[in-house]
Amino acid sequence: MFEAKFQSFDETADPSQGAPRLAALRAELRSRRLDGFLLPRADEHQNEYLPPSAERLAWLTGFTGSFGFVIVLPTKAALFVDGRYAVQARTQVDMTAFTPVNISDETPSDWLKANAERGQRIGYDPEIHTLEGIERFEAAAKAAGLTLIALDGNPVDALWTDRPAPPLAPVVPHDEAFAGESAASKLDRLRAELAKAKADALLVTDAHCLAWLFNIRGGDVAHTPLPLGFAIVPAAGRPDLILDCRKLSNAVRAALSETASLAEPHDLDSALQALGAQRKTVRLDPSGSAAAYARTLEKAGATLQRGPDPIARLKAVKNAAEIAGARAAQTRDAVALCRFLAWLDAEAPKGALDEIGCAEALESFRRETGALKDVSFPSISAAGPNAALPHYRVTRASNRRLETGFYLIDSGAQYQDGTTDVTRTVVIGEASAEMRDRFTRVLQGHIAIATAVFPKGVSGAQLDAFARRPLWDIGTDFDHGTGHGVGSYLSVHEGPQRISKLGTATLEPGMILSNEPGYYREGHFGIRTENLLLVETRDIPGAEREMRGFETLTLAPIDRRAIETDLLSKAERAWLDAYHARVAAEIGPLLDAGARAWLAAACAPL
Amino acid sequence: MFEAKFQSFDETADPSQGAPRLAALRAELRSRRLDGFLLPRADEHQNEYLPPSAERLAWLTGFTGSFGFVIVLPTKAALFVDGRYAVQARTQVDMTAFTPVNISDETPSDWLKANAERGQRIGYDPEIHTLEGIERFEAAAKAAGLTLIALDGNPVDALWTDRPAPPLAPVVPHDEAFAGESAASKLDRLRAELAKAKADALLVTDAHCLAWLFNIRGGDVAHTPLPLGFAIVPAAGRPDLILDCRKLSNAVRAALSETASLAEPHDLDSALQALGAQRKTVRLDPSGSAAAYARTLEKAGATLQRGPDPIARLKAVKNAAEIAGARAAQTRDAVALCRFLAWLDAEAPKGALDEIGCAEALESFRRETGALKDVSFPSISAAGPNAALPHYRVTRASNRRLETGFYLIDSGAQYQDGTTDVTRTVVIGEASAEMRDRFTRVLQGHIAIATAVFPKGVSGAQLDAFARRPLWDIGTDFDHGTGHGVGSYLSVHEGPQRISKLGTATLEPGMILSNEPGYYREGHFGIRTENLLLVETRDIPGAEREMRGFETLTLAPIDRRAIETDLLSKAERAWLDAYHARVAAEIGPLLDAGARAWLAAACAPL
Repeated sequence: MFEAKFQSFDETADPSQGAPRLAALRAELRSRRLDGFLLPRADEHQNEYLPPSAERLAWLTGFTGSFGFVIVLPTKAALFVDGRYAVQARTQVDMTAFTPVNISDETPSDWLKANAERGQRIGYDPEIHTLEGIERFEAAAKAAGLTLIALDGNPVDALWTDRPAPPLAPVVPHDEAFAGESAASKLDRLRAELAKAKADALLVTDAHCLAWLFNIRGGDVAHTPLPLGFAIVPAAGRPDLILDCRKLSNAVRAALSETASLAEPHDLDSALQALGAQRKTVRLDPSGSAAAYARTLEKAGATLQRGPDPIARLKAVKNAAEIAGARAAQTRDAVALCRFLAWLDAEAPKGALDEIGCAEALESFRRETGALKDVSFPSISAAGPNAALPHYRVTRASNRRLETGFYLIDSGAQYQDGTTDVTRTVVIGEASAEMRDRFTRVLQGHIAIATAVFPKGVSGAQLDAFARRPLWDIGTDFDHGTGHGVGSYLSVHEGPQRISKLGTATLEPGMILSNEPGYYREGHFGIRTENLLLVETRDIPGAEREMRGFETLTLAPIDRRAIETDLLSKAERAWLDAYHARVAAEIGPLLDAGARAWLAAACAPL
Repeated sequence: MFEAKFQSFDETADPSQGAPRLAALRAELRSRRLDGFLLPRADEHQNEYLPPSAERLAWLTGFTGSFGFVIVLPTKAALFVDGRYAVQARTQVDMTAFTPVNISDETPSDWLKANAERGQRIGYDPEIHTLEGIERFEAAAKAAGLTLIALDGNPVDALWTDRPAPPLAPVVPHDEAFAGESAASKLDRLRAELAKAKADALLVTDAHCLAWLFNIRGGDVAHTPLPLGFAIVPAAGRPDLILDCRKLSNAVRAALSETASLAEPHDLDSALQALGAQRKTVRLDPSGSAAAYARTLEKAGATLQRGPDPIARLKAVKNAAEIAGARAAQTRDAVALCRFLAWLDAEAPKGALDEIGCAEALESFRRETGALKDVSFPSISAAGPNAALPHYRVTRASNRRLETGFYLIDSGAQYQDGTTDVTRTVVIGEASAEMRDRFTRVLQGHIAIATAVFPKGVSGAQLDAFARRPLWDIGTDFDHGTGHGVGSYLSVHEGPQRISKLGTATLEPGMILSNEPGYYREGHFGIRTENLLLVETRDIPGAEREMRGFETLTLAPIDRRAIETDLLSKAERAWLDAYHARVAAEIGPLLDAGARAWLAAACAPL
């Protein structure tokens, strides 16, 4: 009935390839007079989603998680993953070839220091390691008496005979009706930032920043409409936009040529050399840009100015058009989600639904909006104990039937006018008293964030604990941040804005963030309630400070059946009732009669 | 009737000396072929309270605030202060000689960069600047083409003919009954920390750390029982304790010789040289230790290990004896404070009290405990609008009569068994609806901190906003942290523990912190409600995490007449009633009948 077009539930991993490929890689290393090799799951842009051509770590090991790091030594090889992926790594990877290491137990640089032998030569591909990452390895290498060698070309590529070609998806203009500001105006603002920071030029390696700056989108990776490429933006003058020009139609090429000089990726090196020859001070993000570019600049005579890419902050503050787009996208997305939730409520009790079927159904409802460009990430469709894994991803092997208890679905959409991300946890049959208690506490944390007002200058780090206090009160917590930034028809995860103890960026009006406290009981159930928030200025009569608050953008009912009403304060109850009244009023009229009736009931006051 | 023995309200500043002394300093600089000079308010130990011999900045400028920094150039001189001291600087300093600069508007290093001329030679005394401080100036000097010169001896000392001698207060043992652990045991724990950090030795320059480590106290500065001195603690072997041995009685000398080798301050340099000659890795706190010592070590061949002094964290976690001492000190202090508050309530309506008289009265009640060693800081005794200055310090000139409205007193004591710090805001006559509203919100913030429970690993930064939310709700805030660490018969301000957005140190059971949200309406009134808290483990039935919470240590009524009861939640009311019941039960029996009756009424349920 339903089908997924933008996500797959097939298990592509084949552990049997790990050992022979590792042996081949070691032979290749020996032929290059190397003893070891460092391989991150990364490309030149440090993307969350990689193009298939950059999935070297998956090719070598079988592991397909979104974070991974491999170190190969003559008789040992380690695969570093984080807590989210410990289980997945065990099923995807030949553990006799690769030793799994939890990165919170030992960092790759510490492991290298402890396991490599003095005098060994360790190679790495400097285009896929960040400058900071390599500096950590260099410190470890120095301490352990190793030689770290930046390689020309990646040894994996020499073995990967059927390596896909790099992507060439067409670059499309991101209409100013959605972007709300011309590329020329963005460039002016960026140049002013560079002048203020006393940088002569900025090297842009982050494809999200590139897309925002030039008002372009692409399709080089899954789930985020990115055109992979680079830019060099001088503080005065015309920027270089560096991407494979086969991705440009004549019309797009002509439009881009108005603001930028176009160049090919193989021109990047000479452009960096030129900056060095002119003794320029070049801004570069050491935690996001590759070591290769930093070293080329320095060797050529440039001065590195280390610091965040200023585009990230400009991009994070949405303008009026982007905010209007976000609201329209949310309304559209809410129609699909409410149709899905109504369907789920009708079908689930019959006992025939499973996780994959639900993910397929929700994607289908979203496609029926006629505006879906992609899902913004593979849905987390999790029944029962699977939901206790915050980053669960369903496969044919793990697919679970929806049974009595909680079902959690965390999903999002890419529309041209906005990116969405929403989680709902739904009762099937009955929830236990414990489940209702935890659901209510997660909701209290969610409301505490949604209703927070705070002075100008406050960061997400200062707000994060509001979401945790109801869980702390009973000796529980959740092991992820409360919220991440969200782009505008860009990545569903963007910085610098976040609500987390690490979120030191000031929350500025126009930023969009998620609000997603959760609770996870291993082996039993998981809960998360997620809406997107817009930071806005807040006028309070008599206020002595410039204040900010949040507007909740996401519109979908929160399961009333899971709420322990007595736990809620009067103010919390009032917030939920008002939110539900708003959902019913704004989304109800856009639904057919059946779904509308379901929504009215789901949105009834507590 | 009352008198103050440990604090003075006299204005010692004499602005008329500023111009001639500045002229003399410039002549002195010229004779040394210098164009400029950097002068912090600091000594070799970066103490909060300086010995009179180190009050060079006050001698030069007249300014007596606890933070100040002077830069002298041939035709300009700047005095940097922070927002707390802008008003005080204007009354104490000749502003035609020294240009006042608010340090939040421009840092000293930025000012130097902008105001010095290329090629100028700028001197500084490397023993009173931290390593990090000098590194900031070196970066500025490099950018501006200046030469920074570490001087041998301080040019101010050459002019300051009646400079007091460095203090020689006797060093006294801090009895193990109070310290709870022998110096030998502390040294063992410290050596283990150094070994773990792979440091061969630690340079101790912070006199608080020195006092804690060797279980000694002294009297070299006001309000904190410090013996000024240094130590070098090797990871293996006997430490050097470096202080002026004239401060040691034969008995103390003999006792200290059991754990340490004694040396004189003039031996410090050769001890650092020796570490260098042995190519040692020496731990040193770049934000607390002087540039001179770091440079001597490096020049002599040592490797600097930059990092916090590990003693700070060991010292912050109080042991059972220190906690018992803190409780006893709090009870004793509460008796004095309750007697004072009862007296205040009886006398204030008569209209004859003023700020100085109240500070004298409270100090007298504390002296009557028979155990008062010192006040832990000069009392902030503030009537009416004076209380809107969070760090107000009363002088004969500013002394204000207590009139209808709020009176705020922030004070503390040094007892051998513990250090106290408490603030109460008291209604005289009637408080307006606005004042009651703000008082209640401050109280709600205070209660939110006092009742917080949180998992192991949480920092004060994560809790700080709990204290602000009731004020944020109406568009207000307070411009200081919520809480600072407190020592055990040591400084009333100690780190690393704090409750503030900058407080990234984990809160560990045994730490003592203040809980002091406030509200300040300039020109009108100020409110602060401060108790000390002890971090403790918290057993919660069914808890999934190791949890911590706070025990409130301070025992004194919070003025019920200032509370807008309807604003409080049931839980908040219950907290206040329970706290008051505890105050009445624990302190009432220690008071005479009159004060006891007053306390019973002050502690009646809301």
